[in-house]
Amino acid sequence: MENIDFSKFEKNILDKGFVRLVDMMGDDYAAVKAARVSYGQGLKTPERDKALIIYLMEHGHETPFEHIVFTFHAKAPLFVARQWFRHRIGSFNEISQRYTEIKDEEFYIPSNVRVNVPEDRQKAVQLNDEELLRKVIDMMENVFDESYKIYKELIGLGVARELARIVLPLATYTQFYWTVNARSLMNFLNLRADSHAQWEIQQYAIAIADIFKETCPWTYEAFIKYGYRGDLL
Amino acid sequence: MENIDFSKFEKNILDKGFVRLVDMMGDDYAAVKAARVSYGQGLKTPERDKALIIYLMEHGHETPFEHIVFTFHAKAPLFVARQWFRHRIGSFNEISQRYTEIKDEEFYIPSNVRVNVPEDRQKAVQLNDEELLRKVIDMMENVFDESYKIYKELIGLGVARELARIVLPLATYTQFYWTVNARSLMNFLNLRADSHAQWEIQQYAIAIADIFKETCPWTYEAFIKYGYRGDLL
Amino acid sequence: MENIDFSKFEKNILDKGFVRLVDMMGDDYAAVKAARVSYGQGLKTPERDKALIIYLMEHGHETPFEHIVFTFHAKAPLFVARQWFRHRIGSFNEISQRYTEIKDEEFYIPSNVRVNVPEDRQKAVQLNDEELLRKVIDMMENVFDESYKIYKELIGLGVARELARIVLPLATYTQFYWTVNARSLMNFLNLRADSHAQWEIQQYAIAIADIFKETCPWTYEAFIKYGYRGDLL
Amino acid sequence: MENIDFSKFEKNILDKGFVRLVDMMGDDYAAVKAARVSYGQGLKTPERDKALIIYLMEHGHETPFEHIVFTFHAKAPLFVARQWFRHRIGSFNEISQRYTEIKDEEFYIPSNVRVNVPEDRQKAVQLNDEELLRKVIDMMENVFDESYKIYKELIGLGVARELARIVLPLATYTQFYWTVNARSLMNFLNLRADSHAQWEIQQYAIAIADIFKETCPWTYEAFIKYGYRGDLL
Repeated sequence: MENIDFSKFEKNILDKGFVRLVDMMGDDYAAVKAARVSYGQGLKTPERDKALIIYLMEHGHETPFEHIVFTFHAKAPLFVARQWFRHRIGSFNEISQRYTEIKDEEFYIPSNVRVNVPEDRQKAVQLNDEELLRKVIDMMENVFDESYKIYKELIGLGVARELARIVLPLATYTQFYWTVNARSLMNFLNLRADSHAQWEIQQYAIAIADIFKETCPWTYEAFIKYGYRGDLL
Repeated sequence: MENIDFSKFEKNILDKGFVRLVDMMGDDYAAVKAARVSYGQGLKTPERDKALIIYLMEHGHETPFEHIVFTFHAKAPLFVARQWFRHRIGSFNEISQRYTEIKDEEFYIPSNVRVNVPEDRQKAVQLNDEELLRKVIDMMENVFDESYKIYKELIGLGVARELARIVLPLATYTQFYWTVNARSLMNFLNLRADSHAQWEIQQYAIAIADIFKETCPWTYEAFIKYGYRGDLL
Repeated sequence: MENIDFSKFEKNILDKGFVRLVDMMGDDYAAVKAARVSYGQGLKTPERDKALIIYLMEHGHETPFEHIVFTFHAKAPLFVARQWFRHRIGSFNEISQRYTEIKDEEFYIPSNVRVNVPEDRQKAVQLNDEELLRKVIDMMENVFDESYKIYKELIGLGVARELARIVLPLATYTQFYWTVNARSLMNFLNLRADSHAQWEIQQYAIAIADIFKETCPWTYEAFIKYGYRGDLL
Repeated sequence: MENIDFSKFEKNILDKGFVRLVDMMGDDYAAVKAARVSYGQGLKTPERDKALIIYLMEHGHETPFEHIVFTFHAKAPLFVARQWFRHRIGSFNEISQRYTEIKDEEFYIPSNVRVNVPEDRQKAVQLNDEELLRKVIDMMENVFDESYKIYKELIGLGVARELARIVLPLATYTQFYWTVNARSLMNFLNLRADSHAQWEIQQYAIAIADIFKETCPWTYEAFIKYGYRGDLL
């Protein structure tokens, strides 16, 4: 894509996280051109190009979408990053907590707290009791403060960062670069922009879906119609 | 491999972890047979079969080793699992801390504590001061106890497990199945059975190298001679 | 799988091809065990194990099936192998036509000849006109004989095999080892055991489906019910 | 890369082939930025950025180079494409000979003919005997003409293209799009820009190396110094 204004594609997520589009290669036309190679043809009219994208998606011809590639910069809590990194078709470079000291206040404090529904072990609903919500958040903040205090003390005693960090909670924020093609990104959306995914990673997936929609509108439209298996988009 | 006694291939690692060989397909001969397909030939004498394995490794012909496949069951702290899961050529199934309640005492307490060397930020040496070691471990145990207490209280308040767990430290143990072919396993050993890797994952890598050596002795010998780029085996 | 009789799993395909199961790791229970790791549980009753497999397939939880792994030995014409090798999640070792001399009569002579349907460019139907069929086959055999004669003459003149072979037709048979996990194998079946695939590769896919069905009956049943997107099984 | 003039990156290969850079994401700085995420730092002075690239390559830290991505359009004989497509980390879209009719004169006629060296079965040297060279090329051209004539006759009889093409030789040209990251591209160069590779694919690899050198000069320089295992660059 030429002259893309990347600052448009930056979204704040959760209390301290974000996802930013850093770079991008290709767009709807890249998929069209790759598919047309198969027939010894190039671009045609916009109507026929869009129709081809819909045809490809409807019939499960997903390889042309591998020629659209995105690089994102994300900041997310560790428990979200762990789910994210399970997607193997893509490239990750993450901040190293072995070598980099964790800065203060880099913990996720949830505003949306879910409680179990007694009838369904795998289901959870948002907690609306203000007093209980306050209590839960206080408990979490206390653990985070205490963990971080000990982390700093361990560093102060000379303990290696790679070992001191093992006292830090899963709520600790991390940052990473993620390069992923549109096919693998659609698979990510299928699994993470879905009510079965944890609420926190859903927020990142929805933001990524928005960026995908703005940069590849025809592919996104065809995906939602024929390829998407989740329930949030 | 026929009649393999898998109980032989079970190693305790760190204070509460382990790695076990659960299943295996192929051995040195599987690589030989796959390589001989290329020349329209089958197995020959053991001497020539072993010589072929050495030839393949020396010349970087690694695909025949992809036909040897292992399934391991591992228990390791989260910070080790995070490093492990970065290896994308392989299959992981991990215990879900979204749905499973963490049991007491599932935290890694280091016996080997490293402290920084002032002259080299990336280097660390073992702490030998008994008193300081005791202090460091006490501090860690206190954080783990406190984190776990709050985790249990949050569960008691009805908070969903997927959210309660975010207070747990990176020292928390997890378990997973890992299916990996010998080529990808050798790459794992190159990176993790090496002094630049964190000491804890080195212990797992060395145990896996032992299992690899016992089940595929020729491949292991050729790997150490021609393929291994680490410094611990 | 213990004590598996691999000779059962050998199928002749087309006029001179075959597919054979050479080795295998895991079975229905391997997927169950891998999935149960997620819940800290092991095998249960057969009824519940089978129900779990159906649940996994129905909900698109495909990673547990990556712990079932097959190695096949196949002999197929080059134009079939080219389609097959497009499946990237798996391992191939193929006979080298750079170094190995092609033996006589290693060309695919079709018995099923398709002709175009004027109304639909992408459709083709079986040719039933015996005389025309005989003519088509004669024409093909003549090209194959002539190509092979020149190939031999070039070899006789000292031309390197890697270059002499470029006169050989796409009907030439090749052989290869293929190691693939059950998840990737199911994807292969979705695309190749389907009427949109070329008839020749369909025959291989159907044979592989049979072997899959006999070795992993529950997984196969669940796949056909919930995972299969083709139209031939 | 901004304002890149892609027409510069188009090379004619063999008698009728080519390789063209169609699109690109990232450059030397993309690898630097991805690596610096690990230390919580951004770009620094050019000297230090280049030094970082050399450090990464020297120590085998290859993931930052996955954030540089290329799309090439290539035209190559089928026997070259078959070797190329064995590289699984990357995306291919190829012209379909099932649906597209092959045009006349799309066969590779070698100018460089290798003959065997009696002493070494795997070695071959260029044929300098002009008369013999002419004879070899005549023989090849005759096969190609005959094969193509039969191909056209089969099409004329109504035989489906997917089946008629099986008489075509491995010298037939094909075209494809290839999207690949710099890490996988370097692996391609290690294996194909090497004297053990077939001479024809070497020509493509050398052209791609040139494009890589011009677009990522620091990465290329570091690769040649520390990462390259071939013998032609």
